[in-house]
This record gives sequence, C-alpha cells and structure tokens, in this order.
Amino acid sequence: MTTSKTSISIADIRTAYDRIKDHVVRTPLLESDRLNDILGRRALIKAECLQRTGSFKLRGAFNRALQLSAEQRLAGIVAWSSGNHALALAAVCNRLSIPTVIVMPDNAPKSKVAGVRYYGAEIRFYDRQTDDREAIGQEIAATRGAIIVPPYDDISIIAGQGTIGLEIIQQLDEMQTHADAVIVPCSGGGLVAGTAIAIKNAKPGIAMYAAEPEQFDELARSLKSGKPESNAATSVSICDALQVMRPGNLTFPINLALLEGGLSATDEDVLKAISIAYTHLKLVVEPGGAVALAALLSQKMNVSGKTIVIVASGGNVDPTLFAEAIRSY
Amino acid sequence: MTTSKTSISIADIRTAYDRIKDHVVRTPLLESDRLNDILGRRALIKAECLQRTGSFKLRGAFNRALQLSAEQRLAGIVAWSSGNHALALAAVCNRLSIPTVIVMPDNAPKSKVAGVRYYGAEIRFYDRQTDDREAIGQEIAATRGAIIVPPYDDISIIAGQGTIGLEIIQQLDEMQTHADAVIVPCSGGGLVAGTAIAIKNAKPGIAMYAAEPEQFDELARSLKSGKPESNAATSVSICDALQVMRPGNLTFPINLALLEGGLSATDEDVLKAISIAYTHLKLVVEPGGAVALAALLSQKMNVSGKTIVIVASGGNVDPTLFAEAIRSY
Repeated sequence: MTTSKTSISIADIRTAYDRIKDHVVRTPLLESDRLNDILGRRALIKAECLQRTGSFKLRGAFNRALQLSAEQRLAGIVAWSSGNHALALAAVCNRLSIPTVIVMPDNAPKSKVAGVRYYGAEIRFYDRQTDDREAIGQEIAATRGAIIVPPYDDISIIAGQGTIGLEIIQQLDEMQTHADAVIVPCSGGGLVAGTAIAIKNAKPGIAMYAAEPEQFDELARSLKSGKPESNAATSVSICDALQVMRPGNLTFPINLALLEGGLSATDEDVLKAISIAYTHLKLVVEPGGAVALAALLSQKMNVSGKTIVIVASGGNVDPTLFAEAIRSY
Repeated sequence: MTTSKTSISIADIRTAYDRIKDHVVRTPLLESDRLNDILGRRALIKAECLQRTGSFKLRGAFNRALQLSAEQRLAGIVAWSSGNHALALAAVCNRLSIPTVIVMPDNAPKSKVAGVRYYGAEIRFYDRQTDDREAIGQEIAATRGAIIVPPYDDISIIAGQGTIGLEIIQQLDEMQTHADAVIVPCSGGGLVAGTAIAIKNAKPGIAMYAAEPEQFDELARSLKSGKPESNAATSVSICDALQVMRPGNLTFPINLALLEGGLSATDEDVLKAISIAYTHLKLVVEPGGAVALAALLSQKMNVSGKTIVIVASGGNVDPTLFAEAIRSY
C-alpha cells in the first residue's frame, strides 16, 4: 500500500514516471519574446494545460489508479474535488474500467462538471459553505468499500504530480539552458511539493516558489510562520481550483523544507495573466492555472533570477470568464 | 541562390530542418478523448499555433533568412503578407538584424499588425480591393535593392514549412502509431506542399488533404480540373490568413502530384472548430489555423481512415472574434 508511507523520495517520482509516461502528454516548455519583454527576463512556460483532461491532475490520478489491485479496482474509487482532480480521476477510471464517485461543489465550473459526466463517473454535489466534503466522501467509501483518492495528501498523488519536475529538468537540458527559479500554482500543495523534490534533486540551486490567490495564501503565510496557517472562511477568489483552507498534512513539511517562499496574486492579476497567455502563448489557461504567471507579473521584485520556469497547471475555464478576461485586458 | 531552383526534394526539407531546428519549437501532437468521440475516430492535432510568433510561418522565414549572404542581409527584405508571414519574417529579421519592409492589408487583424510593429519592421499598408500588393513590394525592392521573400512560391519557404511533416512522422513513430490521412490548412499552398513531400517520402500510404475556406477553395477546384482555377473577386471569409486568388506557381504542381484532394469549410464550421479547440485542446487557434479541423468536422464522410492528423497552423486571432466563437458554439 503506497498510502501507508508518509515520506516521498526522488525514487518514488522516477517510478511514477516509468508507470505513467505512456499515458500522459509530455507537455512543452514554451517561450515568447514578447512575454520575456513584459517580464524583463526569460520565462519558460510549462504548458500543463495541454495535458489530457486539461490539467496536471492526470499524472497523480494515473499513478494512484495503476497501483490498485484487481479487487480494489472492482470496489472503485471515491474522491472530492473542485474539478480537475475529479476530471482526471474520472478519465483514468474510465480508461481502466474502475467505478468512481466524485464529490463536487455545486458551484464547480460547468466545463468541469460536464467533463466528469462525460467520463461516466457518478457525481455527488455538496455546498461549499455548509457541507463537509470529506465526511461525505468517507461515508460513501465506507458504504461501498471504495478507496478514497485524496487530491494531494497521498504519496502516489504527490509522486505523480512531481513528474512535471522531471520533465522540466529534461527540457532545460534539451534546450541547453538553466533556470534560476520555478513557480508553481498551489492549492493543497501536492503539485509544488512533488515538483520541488524533482527539481531540487537535480538542481539544488533552483529556487522553488508556490503561487496562490491573494485570499487563499495559507502556504505563503505558513512558510513564513513555520506552522500551518488557515484562510479566513470568508475568502473568495476566481481561482476555483485553488481554494483549500489549510496546507496539506503530507505536503506542508515537504514544502517547508524545499520552498524559497510563497507568492500571491489578485483576481485582476489572474485575469491579466489569462489574457497574456492567450495573446502571446496561444494557450487557454484557467484562473488557478494562471496564478504563477500572475504572481510573477505583479510581484517581479520578489523573485530574483534571469530565467524563470512558470507552471501553467490547467486550462478548464468556462467561456464566459475567459471571454471577459481576453476582452478586458 | 535557392530561388533559382524550381523543384524541391526531401533532401531540401531535411537540410532546412538541420538549419532551423534550434530556432523553432517542436510543437506537440495533441489528442483529446472527447474530440475523438465527436469525430468518431482518432484525431492527432499538430499544435503549430504554439510556434513562436504564433504560426508555422516562422519555419520558412528562418530557412530563407539564414541563407542570405552578408551583403543581402544589409540590403534587407521585403514581403507582402496578410499577417503571419509578416510576423514571422519580422521576428526572424529582428533576431538576425536584417532591415525589413512588410506590405500588409489595411484590414489585417490588429494583433498581427501590433506584432510586426513590435519586432521593428517597417509597414506599408495597402487596400485589398484596389491595390496590387506584389507591385508595391516589387517597387520597394527595386528602390532599396532588397530581397523579396514571397509567402509560398519559394523553394526555401516550402522546404521550411515542410519540416512540420518531418516532425509529424517523428512524433507518430514516438507514439508507436500511424496515421491514415493528414489535413493541412491551405492558402498559397506552401505548407501543404512541403508537408506532403515530407509525409509521402516516409509514408506513401498516408493520404494528404488541403483544407480551405468555402469561398477560397481554388486548390480543391484546381485539383479536380487539373489546372489552376481562380476564386471570385467577391469572395469573403473570416479566415484572414487564407485569401489568395489562385494556386501558387511552384506549389500547385507539387500539390497536384501529391494530394488526395481538397476539403472546404464555412465560416460557421470554422467558428465551431475554434470553440472545440478551446474546449477540448486548450489551444488558441485562429480562423485560418482552424480550417483543417473545421473541414473534418463538417465533411467527415469525405475523408476515410481511423487516425487523422490535423494541422492547427496558427493562433493569431483578435479577442473579439475569439470571444464570439467560444461563447456562441
């Protein structure tokens, strides 16, 4: 059982990569002269929005599901997610014929709900303000004997997401270049934790940063105080994928050990970043996926270095919001 | 002088690839389960909209400019283009410090005009209805002793664009799969001609198709009649990049020899294709770049085969049109 482990090493990430690499897109590391000019330095965009199902979550989902026993596959999977983890798990379980129940907020973006339905997963909606999604998921798991696949506090999930870090290192080598820093969107912290392990193992000198929405900057504050901090219950953000209340139990110690710090971005910064990715990179990036670019655009002075890798982690955004972003900025 | 040659071989394309490969993005070949379902077969999208400057034109432009002598570089380049060739040449000449004049239609998309200006090229606007862009370009060339770089009727340009075909073959091999057909957006025919040479050399069994806007389907009609046909002077299309009046002199014989046929798409088909590429591929594709996907979506029965490669050739589209497409379809 991978879930009984509480620490994760570079070997776990390498094993994950061998397991999933034929199932995932090796997303490109893109560059734009004009974006470089805007930022005053070189930015390399890891375009993970081009991943199948439109986000990095496919990596962790495949890594977890491919380790289930035949019996576990029959009993199925339960998960709670604002969308991208749900979508990825639904796609993976569809491919592997594993029954799945997804516990989703009733205000999740329509595109994400439609995607989960398309892949044939059962959906149980909850109210973000009043319901406890973990309790709902645990009850379903107990009733059905299904396996819970958490969105970030799971070694296999963190290792799967960390394969992005392996690819970034490979791609920097292929481009015969190096990076001074990597900025990664952060919610529960699985993506940034896994990526940091892979990056720091190969290149300890690269500075790692998490990027968060302004009112969901729990990791930035926790990294400063050295202990897990919570967000206000009244917090709001257009980044539907990045709304956790506190850092993950498994991910926080990793992030505390490996990250240089946390950056944050306002909703307006995020809309500008979406528009810039549209104009100069030809990428569709969702609000949560654009927060690393947004943070660098608005907080240039807080990150040093000539070459910065920015992870654009997802692209599942409803057309109304996307149209507003590209027409307004 | 490459321009004195009138035939082109696979060796020209391989040489071009060696020359340009460190300057261009090896754009990914992407897939979406949901797009496959919509099409009823497997579609692999060559995402050339992710190329630097937002279109495939960078390949031909680099291949031509890198062959100029020191004297020719000093005298500079003149070109006429609705936008993407202009943008690519401006970027290449900026990189290589070559002075450039671009003759552009006065109704070219703002994003393309802004891009050409950004790269420091001089712009001479003309009226699509009343002016002869070639005459204007030739006069500038004569006055300044500058080299004319045509958008498609040039061996170096065709060879550069053909490197897309080499990459498609490499990527199919890496994915351990094969394709039955390749569909390529077509204006003057340089991209489809070069790509066809590369594809047919490696895999003669793959069927090659050009895709055109409904009222600019001169190549489809010319392939049927066996001689160059013209479009009506009153033709209109939202595909600003695909508006030539007749097939190219160099490109037509190649396309007549190598293509299975031509497909066409209406403006509405194109808007739907833009929306589908947004939703399922997270790509920003411009109207002309979306015409191959649009033609396959609307004319499924005219192309046989289980696996179809679709070239998405560019992504330079003004936000108003893009917003309309994704909100309406």
